[in-house]
Amino acid sequence: MTLSPNCSELDTSRPTNAEQCPVTPDLFRGLFRQHGAGVAIVTASIDGQRAGFTATSLVSVSAEPPVIAFNISQRSSSWRVIAGQDYVGVHILAKRHEPLATRFATSGIDRFAGVGAQAGPHAVPILRDVDTWMVARIRNRIPHGDSSLVIAQVTDAVVGETAEAPLLYQNGRYLDIADDYQI
Amino acid sequence: MTLSPNCSELDTSRPTNAEQCPVTPDLFRGLFRQHGAGVAIVTASIDGQRAGFTATSLVSVSAEPPVIAFNISQRSSSWRVIAGQDYVGVHILAKRHEPLATRFATSGIDRFAGVGAQAGPHAVPILRDVDTWMVARIRNRIPHGDSSLVIAQVTDAVVGETAEAPLLYQNGRYLDIADDYQI
Repeated sequence: MTLSPNCSELDTSRPTNAEQCPVTPDLFRGLFRQHGAGVAIVTASIDGQRAGFTATSLVSVSAEPPVIAFNISQRSSSWRVIAGQDYVGVHILAKRHEPLATRFATSGIDRFAGVGAQAGPHAVPILRDVDTWMVARIRNRIPHGDSSLVIAQVTDAVVGETAEAPLLYQNGRYLDIADDYQI
Repeated sequence: MTLSPNCSELDTSRPTNAEQCPVTPDLFRGLFRQHGAGVAIVTASIDGQRAGFTATSLVSVSAEPPVIAFNISQRSSSWRVIAGQDYVGVHILAKRHEPLATRFATSGIDRFAGVGAQAGPHAVPILRDVDTWMVARIRNRIPHGDSSLVIAQVTDAVVGETAEAPLLYQNGRYLDIADDYQI
């Protein structure tokens, strides 16, 4: 059992509690290190400037209307574009896209350099190597701390036909799924 | 490439587009069949009645303050409790919890029957077999179609110490991750 540093002398057979002991950022991150996730790349373009980032927070909210949500740090290099543009591209990554996921999570580089991409609906950058993607119109950006939960309605979509193993992430690394994977 | 049924005669080299062709629920579900997810069980209790469901939509929104989000169908048997109670328990599942995940996704049964659970903070049912869990206070329920995106602030948390392979879900089934899994 891991408790936040301020509470190390408390009875560790009981949960930390807000009244006794706050859930610190470190404790919170410890919770989510144990949670797996699928991986997507979110892209957008504003005034000809492209932005994109790897997201492990993509979720389906509603099929009718088709609504998704994802999270973004306001300290992210992509935040200015996501804050200023209403349309985003969301690419669902397969296992073979791990290098692309790493690239779009790396700071201080031109993430699009050498990556095949073309302007899709609403000038959203679409990554050529990814078969399953959507374009969505942002309906809401809900700030919490220094992150924003973005809620968006899907306006355009392409689903790749090939059955592929998904890219999965947990605790700072991509996971190997069994070789006999089949959809 | 899969298009919505109404658009089968369109040029399939282009994405479906809202102006030409709506993103149907089937097409939307096809997108998310390719997306992997971690698995959690969300619980709550109201007037002594316990509810719980398996969720593949848990995401971390912010570490400071500690905020999470998850999705729930308003047609879910758990919805009445989640709509009426401000505190929920969120259990992060490991691979060994697959039977528990299946149980809490099965309709028409008493999901808690035979499952060790005790009342935690705010009477939230805590599943004894799950080592990593949190209690969170709901801040917002955002309806979209017949689902609600629930945003909640974590008030209590326990992180299990044991390194365990996470439970992962995609396209209607749980995934096998490689046996050499190590955190």
